[in-house]
Amino acid sequence: MNFETILGKVEFLEFLRGKKATFLLSASVTKTCEIPNISQAGIPGHLHLTPTLDAEFLCTKQVHSMPQIAQTPTGVPTPALITRAIHELSAFSNIEILNLGLEVIPEINYFKIHNFAIKPSNRIDDGAKINAMEIFQKGLEFAQTFKTNDDYVILAESIPAGTTTANATALALEYACEGYFSSSYKNNPSDIKKIVIEKALNRINSEDELFEKLSSVSDNMIIFNAGFILGSRANNLKVILAGGTQMAAVLLVVNSILRSMDGQIDSSNIALCTTKWINKDENSNIKALLEQLDFPINVYASDFDFELSNHPALKLYDQGEAKEGVGCGGALCYASINGLTKDQVTKKVESFLA
Amino acid sequence: MNFETILGKVEFLEFLRGKKATFLLSASVTKTCEIPNISQAGIPGHLHLTPTLDAEFLCTKQVHSMPQIAQTPTGVPTPALITRAIHELSAFSNIEILNLGLEVIPEINYFKIHNFAIKPSNRIDDGAKINAMEIFQKGLEFAQTFKTNDDYVILAESIPAGTTTANATALALEYACEGYFSSSYKNNPSDIKKIVIEKALNRINSEDELFEKLSSVSDNMIIFNAGFILGSRANNLKVILAGGTQMAAVLLVVNSILRSMDGQIDSSNIALCTTKWINKDENSNIKALLEQLDFPINVYASDFDFELSNHPALKLYDQGEAKEGVGCGGALCYASINGLTKDQVTKKVESFLA
Repeated sequence: MNFETILGKVEFLEFLRGKKATFLLSASVTKTCEIPNISQAGIPGHLHLTPTLDAEFLCTKQVHSMPQIAQTPTGVPTPALITRAIHELSAFSNIEILNLGLEVIPEINYFKIHNFAIKPSNRIDDGAKINAMEIFQKGLEFAQTFKTNDDYVILAESIPAGTTTANATALALEYACEGYFSSSYKNNPSDIKKIVIEKALNRINSEDELFEKLSSVSDNMIIFNAGFILGSRANNLKVILAGGTQMAAVLLVVNSILRSMDGQIDSSNIALCTTKWINKDENSNIKALLEQLDFPINVYASDFDFELSNHPALKLYDQGEAKEGVGCGGALCYASINGLTKDQVTKKVESFLA
Repeated sequence: MNFETILGKVEFLEFLRGKKATFLLSASVTKTCEIPNISQAGIPGHLHLTPTLDAEFLCTKQVHSMPQIAQTPTGVPTPALITRAIHELSAFSNIEILNLGLEVIPEINYFKIHNFAIKPSNRIDDGAKINAMEIFQKGLEFAQTFKTNDDYVILAESIPAGTTTANATALALEYACEGYFSSSYKNNPSDIKKIVIEKALNRINSEDELFEKLSSVSDNMIIFNAGFILGSRANNLKVILAGGTQMAAVLLVVNSILRSMDGQIDSSNIALCTTKWINKDENSNIKALLEQLDFPINVYASDFDFELSNHPALKLYDQGEAKEGVGCGGALCYASINGLTKDQVTKKVESFLA
C-alpha cells in the first residue's frame, strides 16, 4: 500500500510516518439530504442518521441508534467500514466526535463528543439558514484551544448530501467548478443536484458578503472546519483534511476568507488526503479545485482499491458507486504510513460483512 | 527474524522490544573518499553525495540531489534500502539527520536536519585537519541537551570511506587491529587502504595528545559520536550504535578519552547493533575490537540475510559485497524486536528495485 502525491511535497506525509494521530469526525446533518435521490449515503428516509451511525460504528464496531449500519440502496456499505478496519489494524491514538448539528447524538460512552450547540442546517434550496459567522467562530476557537498529545490530527466528515452543499458553496464563492465535484453516486444524479444547487444560488447575489452566502448555500461542516483550519495555525497543529471534494470546499472557503481580509496562511502543516476512487474519478477533479487556492497545499491519494476482494458490495467501490467519506481516504493514507498492507485492510473490511 | 548476542546481555535489547525509537543519521563526508578505489559506497566520482542521497531516500523514498540512488560499481544497492524498508514496515517514531560535514544538504522539508557548522574533513593521508576537540564538544553538548519522547535512540552513520578512517583511528589509538576491520569491498582493497592508513599514521607520533591524533587521522562522524555517547550519559539515554567496525571505532575513542582522564562510564544503556554480514565476516572481527574496551558493552547482530531473495543485486550482500551502513544492522535488530519477518523485509526491499 502506498500513496501518491497529487500536489505539494512528499515529505509532509513521510514525516508523519509512524507518528501518532488523533482522528476527529465532523458529524453533521444538512436537511438537503431529505431531498429525494439527492444522496445515496445511507438508508433512504433515514439519511439524517448516517453521521450518527458512522460515529458509532467507527468507535465501537456497533450501531446503537438503528438496527443496521448505513448502506446505500444499491448495497454499497459506508466507507466507515474502511476507516474502522484501519483503526482495528493500527489504531488511531484517539477518536473524538464533533457534533456539528446532528439529529441524533451517537450513543457512545467514554469517547469524547464535542457539542457546540449547533443545529442541523436547512435545505439549501430553501436557504440553509446557518449563522455562518457564529459557526466559523466556533471552529476557530475550538482549534485555537485544541490540545493533543498526538503528532497530528486527521479531520474527517460524515454529512449526507455534503457534495451538493460543497458544490453550491464553491460556486457561490465563484470558483471554477464545472465537472470538478464528486458525488456518492456512480451515475451522478446531476439533474436533481443541479436543480437544487441552482435554486440555492438563485437565493444569493454575487455582491453579497461572504458569510451571508455561506449562511444560505453551505453546511456546518464546511464552515466550522474552515474556522478550524485557520484557528489551528495558532499552535501550528499538523492537520490532515481527510476527504474529497467536500474537504476541498473547506479549503476554498478558507481561501475566500483570506482574500476578503487580505490575509495569509502558513499552509505548510496542512494536507488533504483522499482515496484512489476520488483521485481517479472521471466525473470530478479535486486537483483542479485545489489548484485555485492562493496558498500551496499538500495533497495525497491512497492507492488502495478492492482489487483483492471478491465481495460484490466492495467491488462497487471500484466501480465508482462510493468514493469517500468518514475520512476513509485519510485513514488509508494513515494505513500506508503505518505499514499496513492492502491484503490486511481488504480482509478486515470483508470480516465486517461476513 | 532474530538477533544474536555477541557480547553483553540479551536483556538490554529485549527490554526495548516494542518500544519507540528515534533514528538519528550521522551524515558526513571525509575527502578520503576521493581517493580512487578506496570505497565502493556510492557512484565513483560522486561518493561525497552518498550520505546526502542516503538521507533523502531514508526519509522520503526519493532522491532529490541526484537522479539515482547510491549504488556500488558492482551494482550493490545502498543499505539505505534495508533501513527504509523497515521504516515502511514498522516506522521509527522519528528520523533526524545530523549534518556532520556534508558537501550537499539533503533536500528534505519537515524532517529535522541538525546543522553544527561542521565542514567535510580532509583526506587522512594529507592530514584530516579536523578541530577534533571542537567536534567532540559539539557531540557532547548535543547529546546532553537532546530531548526525545521516544524510549531509545538508534544512532546510524553514512560516511563513504569511513572504514578506512575508522581503521586509522583505532591504529592511532594503539588498539590491536590486524584483520579486525571491515570494508564495503568483498575483496578488501587492503593495498590502497593500507597505503592511505600508513601515510596517515606517519603524520602522527605515538606521544601526540589524543585529540591531536584524532584531528589528523579520524573523521567527524567518529569524533562527534564519541562526544554523543559520553554526553548521552547525562540523561541516561538508551543508545544503540547502529553500524559495524566504524561504530566500534566510536567506542574505542570513548575508551581512550576515558583512559586519558581516568574517567568511567556507565555503559549499561549503550549497545552496538550490526548485521549478520559483519558478524560472520571472515575478513574482520568486530568482537575482537570491542573486547578491548575497558567497560562492558552490549553487542548484537541481526540474523537477517537475503536467503529468501533471488534478486542478483541483493545476493551480493550475502556474498560479502556490502555489509553495513545507514544503520541497517540496527534497523534489522529493531525489526526483529518489532515483529517483522525476514519475508516481509525481503519483499519490501525487493519492491524498491522492481
